[in-house]
Order: sequence, then C-alpha cells, then structure tokens
Amino acid sequence: PGCSSLGYGAMEELGPFRVNSDGKTLYRNEYAWNNVANVLFLETPAGVGFSYSNTSSDYSNPGDNNTAEDSYTFLVNWFERFPQYKNRDFFITGESYAGHYVPQLAYTILSKNTSKTIINLKGIAIGNAWIDDNLCTKGMFDFFWTHALNSDETNAAINKYCDFATGQLSTSCDQYQTQGVREYGQIDLYNVYAPLCKSSAPPPPTAGVIREYDPCSDKYVNSYLNLAEVQAALHAKHTNWSTCSDLTWTDSPSTVLPTIQQLIASGIRVWIYSGDTDGRVPVTSSRYSINALNLPVETAWYPWYADGEVGGYVLGYKGVIFTTVRGAGHLVPTYQPQRALIMISSFLEGKLPPSS
Amino acid sequence: PGCSSLGYGAMEELGPFRVNSDGKTLYRNEYAWNNVANVLFLETPAGVGFSYSNTSSDYSNPGDNNTAEDSYTFLVNWFERFPQYKNRDFFITGESYAGHYVPQLAYTILSKNTSKTIINLKGIAIGNAWIDDNLCTKGMFDFFWTHALNSDETNAAINKYCDFATGQLSTSCDQYQTQGVREYGQIDLYNVYAPLCKSSAPPPPTAGVIREYDPCSDKYVNSYLNLAEVQAALHAKHTNWSTCSDLTWTDSPSTVLPTIQQLIASGIRVWIYSGDTDGRVPVTSSRYSINALNLPVETAWYPWYADGEVGGYVLGYKGVIFTTVRGAGHLVPTYQPQRALIMISSFLEGKLPPSS
Repeated sequence: PGCSSLGYGAMEELGPFRVNSDGKTLYRNEYAWNNVANVLFLETPAGVGFSYSNTSSDYSNPGDNNTAEDSYTFLVNWFERFPQYKNRDFFITGESYAGHYVPQLAYTILSKNTSKTIINLKGIAIGNAWIDDNLCTKGMFDFFWTHALNSDETNAAINKYCDFATGQLSTSCDQYQTQGVREYGQIDLYNVYAPLCKSSAPPPPTAGVIREYDPCSDKYVNSYLNLAEVQAALHAKHTNWSTCSDLTWTDSPSTVLPTIQQLIASGIRVWIYSGDTDGRVPVTSSRYSINALNLPVETAWYPWYADGEVGGYVLGYKGVIFTTVRGAGHLVPTYQPQRALIMISSFLEGKLPPSS
Repeated sequence: PGCSSLGYGAMEELGPFRVNSDGKTLYRNEYAWNNVANVLFLETPAGVGFSYSNTSSDYSNPGDNNTAEDSYTFLVNWFERFPQYKNRDFFITGESYAGHYVPQLAYTILSKNTSKTIINLKGIAIGNAWIDDNLCTKGMFDFFWTHALNSDETNAAINKYCDFATGQLSTSCDQYQTQGVREYGQIDLYNVYAPLCKSSAPPPPTAGVIREYDPCSDKYVNSYLNLAEVQAALHAKHTNWSTCSDLTWTDSPSTVLPTIQQLIASGIRVWIYSGDTDGRVPVTSSRYSINALNLPVETAWYPWYADGEVGGYVLGYKGVIFTTVRGAGHLVPTYQPQRALIMISSFLEGKLPPSS
C-alpha cells in the first residue's frame, strides 16, 4: 500500500500517455485501456500521490477499512458530480495490494447500493494480487525456487520450517526466507528477467516506444509529475510528488478470500490475472489463492492469443476466471501493453480471451 | 541430434558474425567466444550441415558411438594438420543433445590419449544438456507447470501416471504428456518468453543488433549458407544446406550420468550451465540431473554478475560447477551474448563467475 495509481497505473501502465526520457514530454500509448472504457485513476488513501486531506485525523489510521470507505465516498461524490455516468457498467481493477483494495471496495459498494447513488458494479479484475498472506508468501518462495533464483537448500529449509498452511512461521523460517531473498541478488523482482535502471547507462533516446520496456520509467514519471506546469494543469495541489509514500498500515486482514467468495456469490464478474515473470506476487501465488476457493472448473486450461502469439493462458472456474499474461511482470501493461489490452477487453465484454 | 554447429553455434550463437535480415550480409558479434579462445565448430555426424562422406556406409548407423569415434578421428587429424595447436589447453562445449556428444567425446579422448596425438583436454561445458532421459523429461513437465504453461490437472496426472524414477511410463502418462504439450500452445519452447518469427511481420531492418534477439534468424542463416559464393568461400561442397537433418538415430544411452562421473573422476573441469527460460531442456532438467550425481556442495549458491546485472546463479559442487544464465533460452549466447561470454570466460580460466 501507499503507491500512486496516477504514477504507476496511468503513466507507466495503461493510461493514454507515457513519459519520454527527458522527463518533460509524453508519447502515446496505443494500447491504453481508455480505448475500450472510460478510465478513472484513484490515488488512495489520502496522502498517496496527489491526494491529500485538510483534516489531519484522516492521516492517522491508514488501512484497508478507511481506504474502502474513502474510496466509496469518492465514487459517490464523483457520480453525483458527473451524473451522466451513473447508468454505465462499472468495473474496478487493480494490482498488487489492490488485491485487498478492489474486493473490499466492491464489497462496500454492494453493501451500500441501497442509497440514492446506485453504482452499477459489474465486475472486478485483480492482477498479481496479494490475496492471502500465507498462500502468497508460499507462492513467492516456490517461484524463487522453480525459476532457479534460489538454491535447493533454501527451498528445502523453507518447506521444512515454514508452515504456510497454519501461518506458524518459526524463527528458522524467517532466517531461511531472508536467505532466499539474499540468494536472488540484484534483480528487478517485479520482472525477474527485466534489465535494471543503471545510472551508468547512456541516456536512452527521448522518444519512447510503447513496446520497449524502459527500466528507468520511474525516474521520468517522477520528473514529469513534479513539473510546476504539470501539477497546475492537473489541478493538483502543488506538492513534492513521489510514487510511493510511507504509511503505517493499521488494518489488513490476513486473507481476502472470504470477501472474494462473497463477491462470487453476488454474481459479479471476478477475474484474477497474473503476469508470469513477476517474482513479488507471482503467478504461483495467484494459483494457490484461487485453488483455496475450491471452485469447479468450467472451461479447461487453454492458451489465449494476441497478434498471433500466445498472450497467456486461461482457466475458467465457476465464478472466477484466471488468466495469465505471458512475459509480463508485476505491472502487466508496462511489459505487455497489447496483451494486457486484449485481456482487459475480454473481461469488459464478459467473454473469455481469444483462443486464436 | 542432426543439427548444425555452424548454422546454430557459429552463425546464431557464439561465432564472430551473425547474418543480417537480407540473408546476404553479416554483422559483428562483439561477444564472440573467439575473444577468449580459438574456436572450432564441428558439423557432426556425417550428413549434418556441410559434413558429408563419400562412403555410403558412414551414413547407415548414425548414433552416439560413431559420432564420438568420428569426432575423435577428426580432432586427431586436425591436430596433425595444425600441430602448432597440439600443446594448447583444449575444451569441448555444446548444448542440447551435445549433453551426450560432449561427455562421450571427452571420454573417448581420455581413453585414447595414449596414442601419438595427445589432446590436452582440460574440461567440458554443456548447456541445457540432455543428460538423462527420465530426469530431463520430468524436468521439462515440471518446468511447464511451474512456469504456468500447463494446468494443475495435467501436472497432477503426469505425476500420477509417469514414474520417472523407474522410467515406467504408462499409456496414460503418454496421453497426459501429449495434453501437456498441447496446453502450452504456439510458443517458442526454446525460449518461452521470446516472440515468434511471423511471415506477416514487417521485414526488420537489415542491420542486426547483437543485443536484440531476432526470431527470424534461422531464415537469414539458411539463405546465407545457401549462397553459392558463401559455400565456395567456406570450401564447402556445394549442397542444399539445411540447419537440421533427419537422422534415424541407432544408439543413445538413456543416461550419460555414468560418463559424466568418469569425467569427474578423471579430474577434468566439468561445467553444466543452463539458460533459465528454455522449456525444451530446462534448468529443472539440469538440476535434477546434477542432483542425481549426489555430489557435495563446495560453494553455496550465489548470484553472478555481468555488467552490473545478475547474469545468473552458480552452485559449486565437488567436481561439477552448475551455472544458470538469466533470461537465456536453449541457445544461450543467442539470447544473452554478454552473459554467455562472461560465463564461458570464467570456465576457461578455471574460476567461478564474478560475484559482483
């Protein structure tokens, strides 16, 4: 928690523009998700990105509960301010810790939809999502080992000393987890095959190319969103903007699987997707989390296609669609913009991704 | 077996030149292995690539035994023809089915080194090597599952019906292996994240860039090595050259682990390396094969570095060094030329890859 939807989501992932290496100019993202939907990016909770509060107590207890409440309040006010959107189908997506935010906000909406502002919530899609502390941690260390980022010794010790079924993690478990993290060295854990942003590297060309991943994008976005004229044009309060804020999180359930089960029961569309080269919240974590739901399979595993290539794989459960995005890390549209757009278009249309 | 060292090894991997997309001109590989060694590429056995025989019986029983014998005969004759190289340190490397060729040739050399031509064999390095039929097949299907290329269902069935410990593979095992291969769809199995060569794609620029992988390289090399002037310049017999030949293989032991054990006992350097994104002979296969040797660990797992990035990982056993190359597929120097050169330089110098 604590990172900016505008900085990551909009400017590095699925928004209409990305920032060139000069930190001042933009280039177009032809695979922006607003090709297929109106997209709102929400900086949440207060204190993240450009969001702020004039009431200091709003900053005192950042956590899952007030994030969901505040986000719901924002949405209701936004719909009252722009009532022409009230009857539209409404979807929520997010990645990483939004594995908490998105189901919780969806649940809040469904719970409060008796008020005067009815939000026409149709579904959620969560990517590389932190869903269950034990299962996601187990998935992370399994990914390290199966992707040859950890030794057999460390893997065996973690399996011996960490009881992920009960969450009873011993001191030895802690020590071997630390060893596992040390063993993979200086890589971008969020895409284990991606290059690093190195200060020694020659400056890349100003004009970015949407299909080419630039590991220094964080720097360009930081420069851009701190330009006084950009902050003014965004109607943002003048601030020293940063991608992520340090927040002392006060409430976080160890699992949101019960919330996801309630959403499934409500009948809204639930997609769980995963870029398959992310080591932080890996595809193994997604699989373990979904398996814990014990849902019957309705559509067998198949490769889905984008531009004549395998875009990823899909497995249809009763109530949940699981999809992977091949060759994508944690920020899926950053690494695979075309595949991500095809996947999210299928989600919005309520059909499975194309089988050819 | 049956593929060309000249076509793959020299022209697409570690040789001094690669072929531009015009199929007629070359560009330099600054990471060629002849920066650090004199390199011979051997087309083997007879009938592969430009190699041929005027004696038809030479074609009748292609297999491991006569490949090792003929390769040894070639080497002795080559050293007699170029005696100035006789006292040099000599190393053999190869990938894929060369997991058979290389240890077998090394063993043949050591067995026959009493003759007048002493070959100063110092070590072997085998990459993404087919070492043991059962362990490599098990490693392949485990890789499919752990890299989210196969469903849980297929994985569970393969583990249930395929007894890789004994090699007793039932009919159900066969069926689920077929299902596993169908499930991953149209990807380049030799680098599961790489793009495909598509006829619909716009022709890439003529001038290649060594750091950029071009999935159509096979086509360019095929055009180049079929140019009459190229064949003449190579002093090759005029032929319709192709990258791989269909051979009916007559002998192939199910494992070369005993041969590798004999090489370890002889004291020569043995390295087993693996590009970690290869799905055909994956890093899991290499690990299972090495684990079967039951060697004590001498140097614990650590990340090794190339140009400020993790180039891969290394684990030092008594008698065998295991290294991975991060982000490389089956043809390691094709995908990661700089990392491959650093790794092979360490091998040649008899030291471990750099820890920073």
